[in-house]
Amino acid sequence: MSTLVGNCLVAQSGGPTSVINASACGVIQEAFRTGEINQVYGALNGIAGVLNEDLFSFNEESPEEIELLKVTPASALGSCRYKLKSIEQSEGDFERIIEVFKAHNIRYFFYIGGNDSMDTAYKVSRYAQKVGYDLKSIGVPKTIDNDLPITDHTPGFGSTAKFIATSIKEVGLDARVYNYSTVTICELMGRNAGWITASSALAKKYEDDAPHFIYLPEVPFSFEQFDKDIRTALEKYNYAVVAVSEGIKNEEGKYISEMCSDTQMKDAFGHVQLGGVTGILEAYVSQNICKKVRSVNYSTIQRSAAHCASLTDNEEAYLCGAMAVRYAIEGHTGKMVGLFRENTKDYHCETQLVDLDDVANKEKPIPKEWLNEEGNYVTQEFIDYVRPLIMGEVKIRMENGIPRYCKLNKKLIERKVGPWNVK
Amino acid sequence: MSTLVGNCLVAQSGGPTSVINASACGVIQEAFRTGEINQVYGALNGIAGVLNEDLFSFNEESPEEIELLKVTPASALGSCRYKLKSIEQSEGDFERIIEVFKAHNIRYFFYIGGNDSMDTAYKVSRYAQKVGYDLKSIGVPKTIDNDLPITDHTPGFGSTAKFIATSIKEVGLDARVYNYSTVTICELMGRNAGWITASSALAKKYEDDAPHFIYLPEVPFSFEQFDKDIRTALEKYNYAVVAVSEGIKNEEGKYISEMCSDTQMKDAFGHVQLGGVTGILEAYVSQNICKKVRSVNYSTIQRSAAHCASLTDNEEAYLCGAMAVRYAIEGHTGKMVGLFRENTKDYHCETQLVDLDDVANKEKPIPKEWLNEEGNYVTQEFIDYVRPLIMGEVKIRMENGIPRYCKLNKKLIERKVGPWNVK
Repeated sequence: MSTLVGNCLVAQSGGPTSVINASACGVIQEAFRTGEINQVYGALNGIAGVLNEDLFSFNEESPEEIELLKVTPASALGSCRYKLKSIEQSEGDFERIIEVFKAHNIRYFFYIGGNDSMDTAYKVSRYAQKVGYDLKSIGVPKTIDNDLPITDHTPGFGSTAKFIATSIKEVGLDARVYNYSTVTICELMGRNAGWITASSALAKKYEDDAPHFIYLPEVPFSFEQFDKDIRTALEKYNYAVVAVSEGIKNEEGKYISEMCSDTQMKDAFGHVQLGGVTGILEAYVSQNICKKVRSVNYSTIQRSAAHCASLTDNEEAYLCGAMAVRYAIEGHTGKMVGLFRENTKDYHCETQLVDLDDVANKEKPIPKEWLNEEGNYVTQEFIDYVRPLIMGEVKIRMENGIPRYCKLNKKLIERKVGPWNVK
Repeated sequence: MSTLVGNCLVAQSGGPTSVINASACGVIQEAFRTGEINQVYGALNGIAGVLNEDLFSFNEESPEEIELLKVTPASALGSCRYKLKSIEQSEGDFERIIEVFKAHNIRYFFYIGGNDSMDTAYKVSRYAQKVGYDLKSIGVPKTIDNDLPITDHTPGFGSTAKFIATSIKEVGLDARVYNYSTVTICELMGRNAGWITASSALAKKYEDDAPHFIYLPEVPFSFEQFDKDIRTALEKYNYAVVAVSEGIKNEEGKYISEMCSDTQMKDAFGHVQLGGVTGILEAYVSQNICKKVRSVNYSTIQRSAAHCASLTDNEEAYLCGAMAVRYAIEGHTGKMVGLFRENTKDYHCETQLVDLDDVANKEKPIPKEWLNEEGNYVTQEFIDYVRPLIMGEVKIRMENGIPRYCKLNKKLIERKVGPWNVK
């Protein structure tokens, strides 16, 4: 048990989610509860804020706003895409980080993010050990993509899955109201793993419900299969709703979204160039199958829809943040908080520490056995895996008819070390 | 007071909304309550279902499912885009409608829809009077576009406004997390009236909140103004979120969404062709102002998001349906149920009958005085008008983590007249 009394720092990185702030809230409130941490600092824009010494203190924020963080979407502390190279390649960055930590007596570092951020938390921990600075660095996972290995799932995924299942249920009802055939193509995030897209299957209750087919990056996309699928759905149900991952690729591994610059495709589509996957599939359908075709691209709506967040996901995100603090106080470092599903009838997850170097820069696709033979839908095993993650609704404080989300002051504290310049 | 005992028919038309089924539920439940109506029929796919004699009976549906209709999005009875011409031009259609009504002793006709549907309800009423068939035909307004005249607003609009304000608040938080400049362009429905797009302003609480600018069909779109606006927002806030109506036009009245086929635009964009308004504006921004630009097109998500419906809107939609029945029983025909806002401090609306010929085929744009001088934002008067319409949340029955919406059997009753063919 470490008895070190110092300050802590929490930062966020990568793409936002509906619950990344719930994890931050877990860190902050637990840090205050421990009595072993003086100042709870936040860094503006992730590791870039550490390098720039752009720090603010949660001791100066109102407890009510901090409580609201728990249900507020997006990265309230600010995010970045700055990636630290290896310790050898960017030793200057690491020196600077430790310099800033020392100046503010930061002894605990909590980094909430995806793959790259876990890599950063790991390297910072290793560098601190190397230079003999006593620091506990813990990674808190977040990514709507659910593509981190080892952990059963990642906070952020369940809420996106819940919103997508809800909205595709609704868009599916909307798509079937007419007495003529319609095709609706829904584009979802997940460039290399199809977890989000596959979760649209949770919308289906009856056989004729949307989505009818699902196209994932895990399975090479074939226009012949797609053509056959759309015709099958139209024949059976008079409407077709399909969910498509932004990252689908053809047999040669080329992104479908990039095929618009391909001569073959240009010819097939009469030199019309279109935006993204849905643009290409929409053009294909309208020229070959059915004129009434519509694209629905969920863009950032899907990762920010905290008004429709999963309570399970929200609580787990908070728990991961809070447990990160407890593990750090216990003396752990260079680890990530993982979620482990217990082998019980009712769903239950507990946190455990995971070695960061097992997680960093690795990806977890959907297992092949959770896809059907044609590769255009998921199996019941997949549904059974995801369903518990979308259960429960978060109580949102409403103000004037819309959610009242957190607004931090983020008043920067006085700098103690020299200038630096990370954009 | 009419003492006629007969059957009634309810049908839906035009684009779906989150609450068009609430209106249907109001009709059905009130019709059962009166004790003066035997069978409550529904027509499959609006007036096309009447012409085809595709009818089913709500007496055969379970009361639980009918109750669920109240919160279910999209047109559960099915919709159509079939438009009746004048009585002189399509007398055959009108004859057929009355023939079907006679065969099933339908004495009350409730048509829930937008502009065209009000036109149909009106013409059917006039034709019935002309041929001496005792029929009460009442129109029930619905349209997310809020473009019907006379009525203070239309059921469907408030729920779309609430979802859009909620989601743009969330997307706005998502858009500002990075330490570099980003531009987000949100495309919203409303081809000729900007009510939905303008409602995005309800998302703004603090000056730096999204949306920063709003572009409506009521104001000619200028690329110079747009360019200036985006640069202003980036300078002030380091991010820009703008809401754009699908129906914006340039000074010459040409839709911006159609400018991709224009030679001038083709040249400006290096012959790249893009989908819709957002595609064009996104290309403009990325080539002239900022590389980090993203489009968010709300497509049918915005009109089907019943999970985020406005309670006020939902209750008014139900009320309009229920009152339609009461007005019909009182002997009114050829009228629409309108909503009238009382001149009180607290918001309160009552229904009144409106002459259908005052409503049919007319449109209501946003009044000029509710737009700012530059035409790129709304005034406080607009906010004060819309705010009450988004208040309150609808309680949704959840099942397996997503809304449990209504599923009707729609078992067709035996036909009594000969075949007809409307697609």
